[in-house]
Amino acid sequence: MAPFLSKRDLRFQLFEVLNSAALPERPRFADHSREVYEDVLNLAYNVADRYFANHAREADLNEPHVVDGKVQLVPGVAEAMKAFREAGFFGAHHDEELGGLQLPWVILQAVQAHFQAANVGSSGYPFLTIGNANLQREFASPEQQRRYMLPLIEGRWFGTMALSEPHAGSGLADITTTATPREDGTYSLSGSKMWISGGEHELSENIVHLVLARIKGGPAGVRGISLFLVPRYRIREDGTPGESNHVVLAGLNHKMGYRGTTNTLLNFGEGGETIGELVGEPGQGLRQMFHMMNEARIGVGMGAVMLGYAGYLASLEYARERAQGRLASNKDPHSPAIPIIGHADVKRLLLRQKAIVEGGLALGLYASSLVDDLQTGREEQRADTGLLLDLLTPIVKSWPSKYSQEALSDAIQVMGGAGYTRDYPVEMYYRDNRLNPIHEGTEGIQGNDLLGRKLTQAGGRGLEILLSRMEADLQEAQQLEGLDEIRAALATALKHNQSALKAILGRATDLGPDLFLANANSALEMLGHTVVGWMWLRQAATAARALPQAKSDDADFYQGKLQAARFFAVYELPRIEFHAELLASADATTHEMQDRWF
Amino acid sequence: MAPFLSKRDLRFQLFEVLNSAALPERPRFADHSREVYEDVLNLAYNVADRYFANHAREADLNEPHVVDGKVQLVPGVAEAMKAFREAGFFGAHHDEELGGLQLPWVILQAVQAHFQAANVGSSGYPFLTIGNANLQREFASPEQQRRYMLPLIEGRWFGTMALSEPHAGSGLADITTTATPREDGTYSLSGSKMWISGGEHELSENIVHLVLARIKGGPAGVRGISLFLVPRYRIREDGTPGESNHVVLAGLNHKMGYRGTTNTLLNFGEGGETIGELVGEPGQGLRQMFHMMNEARIGVGMGAVMLGYAGYLASLEYARERAQGRLASNKDPHSPAIPIIGHADVKRLLLRQKAIVEGGLALGLYASSLVDDLQTGREEQRADTGLLLDLLTPIVKSWPSKYSQEALSDAIQVMGGAGYTRDYPVEMYYRDNRLNPIHEGTEGIQGNDLLGRKLTQAGGRGLEILLSRMEADLQEAQQLEGLDEIRAALATALKHNQSALKAILGRATDLGPDLFLANANSALEMLGHTVVGWMWLRQAATAARALPQAKSDDADFYQGKLQAARFFAVYELPRIEFHAELLASADATTHEMQDRWF
Repeated sequence: MAPFLSKRDLRFQLFEVLNSAALPERPRFADHSREVYEDVLNLAYNVADRYFANHAREADLNEPHVVDGKVQLVPGVAEAMKAFREAGFFGAHHDEELGGLQLPWVILQAVQAHFQAANVGSSGYPFLTIGNANLQREFASPEQQRRYMLPLIEGRWFGTMALSEPHAGSGLADITTTATPREDGTYSLSGSKMWISGGEHELSENIVHLVLARIKGGPAGVRGISLFLVPRYRIREDGTPGESNHVVLAGLNHKMGYRGTTNTLLNFGEGGETIGELVGEPGQGLRQMFHMMNEARIGVGMGAVMLGYAGYLASLEYARERAQGRLASNKDPHSPAIPIIGHADVKRLLLRQKAIVEGGLALGLYASSLVDDLQTGREEQRADTGLLLDLLTPIVKSWPSKYSQEALSDAIQVMGGAGYTRDYPVEMYYRDNRLNPIHEGTEGIQGNDLLGRKLTQAGGRGLEILLSRMEADLQEAQQLEGLDEIRAALATALKHNQSALKAILGRATDLGPDLFLANANSALEMLGHTVVGWMWLRQAATAARALPQAKSDDADFYQGKLQAARFFAVYELPRIEFHAELLASADATTHEMQDRWF
Repeated sequence: MAPFLSKRDLRFQLFEVLNSAALPERPRFADHSREVYEDVLNLAYNVADRYFANHAREADLNEPHVVDGKVQLVPGVAEAMKAFREAGFFGAHHDEELGGLQLPWVILQAVQAHFQAANVGSSGYPFLTIGNANLQREFASPEQQRRYMLPLIEGRWFGTMALSEPHAGSGLADITTTATPREDGTYSLSGSKMWISGGEHELSENIVHLVLARIKGGPAGVRGISLFLVPRYRIREDGTPGESNHVVLAGLNHKMGYRGTTNTLLNFGEGGETIGELVGEPGQGLRQMFHMMNEARIGVGMGAVMLGYAGYLASLEYARERAQGRLASNKDPHSPAIPIIGHADVKRLLLRQKAIVEGGLALGLYASSLVDDLQTGREEQRADTGLLLDLLTPIVKSWPSKYSQEALSDAIQVMGGAGYTRDYPVEMYYRDNRLNPIHEGTEGIQGNDLLGRKLTQAGGRGLEILLSRMEADLQEAQQLEGLDEIRAALATALKHNQSALKAILGRATDLGPDLFLANANSALEMLGHTVVGWMWLRQAATAARALPQAKSDDADFYQGKLQAARFFAVYELPRIEFHAELLASADATTHEMQDRWF
């Protein structure tokens, strides 16, 4: 069985491309060192390998189901949760005084990458719990944190995010779950929530739902939406779970993939009162949720990267072992068949996967390092860092979601009929990852967010910062040998970006909001490929610097980086010209299409 | 539930774009008329709807499995086979004297399209049987036809194609199954065959395997491969099935999709002798198989089209019913949410599906009409028709296989979380269709076939014919209004094709066969999109002619055709520039990549 993750590449990204070993210079991380990070990563690999990878297929084949009102999961899930808890990963980035390790965000993402690659279904439970606790850390009162957050950090209770409703998925402004004030200051919740991952299970003593709802009598639209802490079991005075809070499992969703994660329809206030506590001020629910959205969306992007990565490694191993056919130049039928990795078209499929997943990993970790810079970097740079992170987030979420799917299709293609069977994991990764372009904001929503908001906010400052960082890396790369093709491709891409964005942004008012946004997808494609091209320039520059001193395996590794960067420059980046032209043209074909013409 | 096929579009393609109503002018079809064809198509719709669509999901959820040595299928499959047989579709294109209807190939493909769309898994059994009988009709002796083919045409026995072996899938030259001559002129077969669809079941009285094997002592490579008729049960003197022929089911394959079709590993000569009869001359096995390859590959392409088409119709229905969000221009939270078909990005996803599946359908039926021209068209044009069909075949096979998968991904995306669940059929179509770029020759093989063989055979005459047909349609379309954008896009694409092909073909010798073929995939992409662009010009021209006289629904239908053609011209065709440049450059990035660098 192929490894699910490349330890070598993860360390290259963290310690050679990014300068993560310098994080301990920041006061919050003063107790750390590269060795500490290495230990944490090794621990993550071992826990992921032993307790998560072991039951990934079993959980896929045996979906959660209900017996006597209780959700049944394969036994490996509970064991995995125990191992994750014992490793201290639930609270790893929290303050030491809360029992955490104060891990930087980028290291935490690298840790989580192991679990996403090894078993994305089981990784859902702890990741939702971590996200829930983060949101509480930001907005909940100290008393709420003590009661609802600490058990999550300890991994005793799990958490969910309950946003969507059966009639309101992407359109959260239309949710109708209501919160009626009670005399003691709490609220009584009533309504249904759809697509709630981890919404019901017996893995933890309690489940804390973070629920979006409308306080009765409040305004329509997003201003009427507030956020509530809603436990599965009401919390006793001593902090232990007590009686049912009447959050009722109304059904399980049956998905193509991601089958290991319980996905539920929940009814609130069925058969009794569901009591919740308001988080912060009324009407701030969506703002609070979106405050955490950068991190959540980076998480989805990283999950997509890691599924693609695991598929790449599986198909690479297969391509080295499977012999089939001969080169066109060899006409001798008596000569042995060669491993298929020797065929140029198979190398194309493998190089494309490598370019996508390693480019995506570089992007996800780069964005994660911005989260750290925002929290612990130099004070005077934080505003700019925040704008850059805001701009990159729709790309970090959607680019790997879309392109890992293509990479996984390439993995199946490399393996042929074998890749299409359940004897190998790639078909499962392919089914799993197809969710990523949908949840946490569809690709359409990311495109609108990028073109309609992020590219213009603060007078376009985010784009300015992005362009200047790319230009700086282009400048620096001039000193290095062998990067001409890669630099030229990125420089050309930058020009196309600039002229296309100038054209479309300049016409925004004339076009009106609907036509202006009609080709937002092309903005996402264009800027997405460009940003990943930049990630490849950074990796290639790092490799070019290291190669002269490198020996044997290391030299091969750096050669591979340079060749994959070249591949991205030649086989991927030029595709953006099409999107740049389409975007600049403000073509109205889709805008003008009529329902009745379909 | 959405319809699985558009009757209106199928008739548009057959009777408006293609002139299928004129086929009865040919002697073989003299008894036919458009009404006959309409009746056959209506019958196909009804049988497909009632007996195939009904158990598609059930068969997907309940894979074939073995109980007491017998393969178990859901009951609907046997009922579907009975209905298909009673409708006379097993022998529909065969001679009337054999009980057939002498249907033209293009009408037969249109008939089969219904079953592919309604239930691709169950359609596998009759389609393999039809393909098997066709091959026998071409190469088997009259006596063999009487014994092995007639029961297939009657639908009493079923057929398979047994080519691949566990170690030899794409590399058929390396098969090792042996055929040892017996004294009576028959052969004793021994070996294993992998991925054999319909290889074992209880649906028919007997199964006739067409098996590739090597006659003992013959030459290595493809010249040593012969074709054999191998029944599951030996045939008695009176033609009925007798004792076991020792073709043993060694295992069932468990696939991501296509789950309704039994897919097997078969051992020949296990526990007793497996006796087979040689078809035609020794050493002709691959040639015979490849003689039928055009038809088989068109069949795969059509299957891909129809899965994409069914997904398109399902997502279209959903987009009309599901209300979510408002236009960006509407800031009133009190206004109702609109059906998502009103959002430009959803229209983009729907238009792209429409452009792909209707373009693919036009291509599949056009190629099918060439099969008719080859068999019943004017004698003096048959050589050219054959070359054009040869050239188009890798495209007809691979383009819909790849792009229907993208269309199905778009269908899921339109439907969001719902599309990702098993409550709707699109996730199943998406799993089903992922096989199509693999079987009957992978995409890599189609690329090599196109660039390495079809573009150069007969001095490039196939390409000449293709280009002249496109030019003729471009000329003709000049007379029509509203096609300028579409014509210009196709004309530009043609120029890119010509210059790129001239560049790469001109360097073939210098580059050597391996580097010459390294970017064959881009030839496939470039010419594929161009050919489909041509199909859209033909549809747009037909629509433009009909629109002035059309009323209500018909007018909307033609408007939709024009808008989809425009979409393909603006959103798809320009993408080929990238492939043209890559192909012309003979870039060596993949060729030079080394195994150890991965």
